[in-house]
Amino acid sequence: MLKIGVATYTLRLWKIDETIALLQKLGIEYVSLKDAHLPRSSSPDELRAIIKKFQAAGITPLSVGNIAIKNDEADARSAFEYAKNAGIGTMVCAPPVEALPMLDKLVKEYDIRLAIHNHGPEDKHFPTPYAAYELIKKLDPRLGLCVDVGHCARGGKDPARAIWDCRSRVYDIHLKDIHTTERNGRAREVGRGVLDIPAILHALQKIKFEGNIGFEYEKDEKDPSLGLAESVGYVRGVLKVL
Amino acid sequence: MLKIGVATYTLRLWKIDETIALLQKLGIEYVSLKDAHLPRSSSPDELRAIIKKFQAAGITPLSVGNIAIKNDEADARSAFEYAKNAGIGTMVCAPPVEALPMLDKLVKEYDIRLAIHNHGPEDKHFPTPYAAYELIKKLDPRLGLCVDVGHCARGGKDPARAIWDCRSRVYDIHLKDIHTTERNGRAREVGRGVLDIPAILHALQKIKFEGNIGFEYEKDEKDPSLGLAESVGYVRGVLKVL
Repeated sequence: MLKIGVATYTLRLWKIDETIALLQKLGIEYVSLKDAHLPRSSSPDELRAIIKKFQAAGITPLSVGNIAIKNDEADARSAFEYAKNAGIGTMVCAPPVEALPMLDKLVKEYDIRLAIHNHGPEDKHFPTPYAAYELIKKLDPRLGLCVDVGHCARGGKDPARAIWDCRSRVYDIHLKDIHTTERNGRAREVGRGVLDIPAILHALQKIKFEGNIGFEYEKDEKDPSLGLAESVGYVRGVLKVL
Repeated sequence: MLKIGVATYTLRLWKIDETIALLQKLGIEYVSLKDAHLPRSSSPDELRAIIKKFQAAGITPLSVGNIAIKNDEADARSAFEYAKNAGIGTMVCAPPVEALPMLDKLVKEYDIRLAIHNHGPEDKHFPTPYAAYELIKKLDPRLGLCVDVGHCARGGKDPARAIWDCRSRVYDIHLKDIHTTERNGRAREVGRGVLDIPAILHALQKIKFEGNIGFEYEKDEKDPSLGLAESVGYVRGVLKVL
């Protein structure tokens, strides 16, 4: 069973209680927590309390992020400490290429998986999952990918194919749809854009993906609930028939 | 292409403008109008103005109803006049069995299709589509069915099978999901209940159904928008793969 969740960046303007209430209404059982809901400034006790709050509501946090990481060990360490203190085993991150040797060391030290997020043609470091995969495939296996299917497609690569090609290192997914795969592709309700959502989900089934498949719905920033609900329904409908 | 619409009973507590705005957000292009939005007390000009308002918003009214009809010609005529004045060719109705000969006459006179709504085991007249089909199949072909898939299943009949078996007379659909097919089956977001939605949609594809397939979402009466959005997404997802 694929774990269909939400990347809580979607609800970054919503408080934790509102976010949990919406996820419960939608029957969502997994999240990737953004710092809007799991603040980086929190104490270890506060971090654990927030995680427990989600868990008590029947929602399992599977990852944190996306976290921008500098090529600076102290900065990277603070991110690893954050994930460690929260008790979360996967961090979605956007590091610069030069930081990879240092991160290769830290994933070993912390035993935490780092999922590099691809951000499309504007991203000098990792426009597509392949850009990261080529560099990390010989490094520690805890270095992996968060495949953002929208940015991947805008970067000129088929996301279903990328999931398959990079399968040994796919640890997290940002699920979305976009109105065109051109650079200017804008967010759409999942199913109303141009991405081949059934192919993406089929690829995730084929690789027996066990990480968070998180909706990152970036339309209707103030109240994304309706578009998120439609997106959730669409993916459930596709999975029913697939 | 199946016409996925909304039976506006779903939004009976919402004003017309709110209803139209929500349907536009959801990309819904068809409706079956309930009297909450197309009041029976309206003048012909008012009825046409409401129809035009929906059309101007890109939403085509395909039917009206559900209308309770008595075994009384004056009462039935007022319903036919209502549909005629609104310019709508299909009325979803709940008549008593005894009214069928009179309605057989009126569908000819008005050239308006009457789609008999089945309402489950509590409905003495038409618990399932079959109950109506057996009585109307030798009457005027403008006498047909609105298959309510939830009530049909609660009435002990498989809705996909009923759509196929009664295919020559299926003119409207109430689409929904229920938590059990027992008598006490309660409304659920489409996809979260027990109905085989892919089979229902496949049956409608097989019979090349051209009428309104209207979500009648009866959960969350005050604000059904979230559950309706999820339901819309689910059906689109199923249809994408089917």
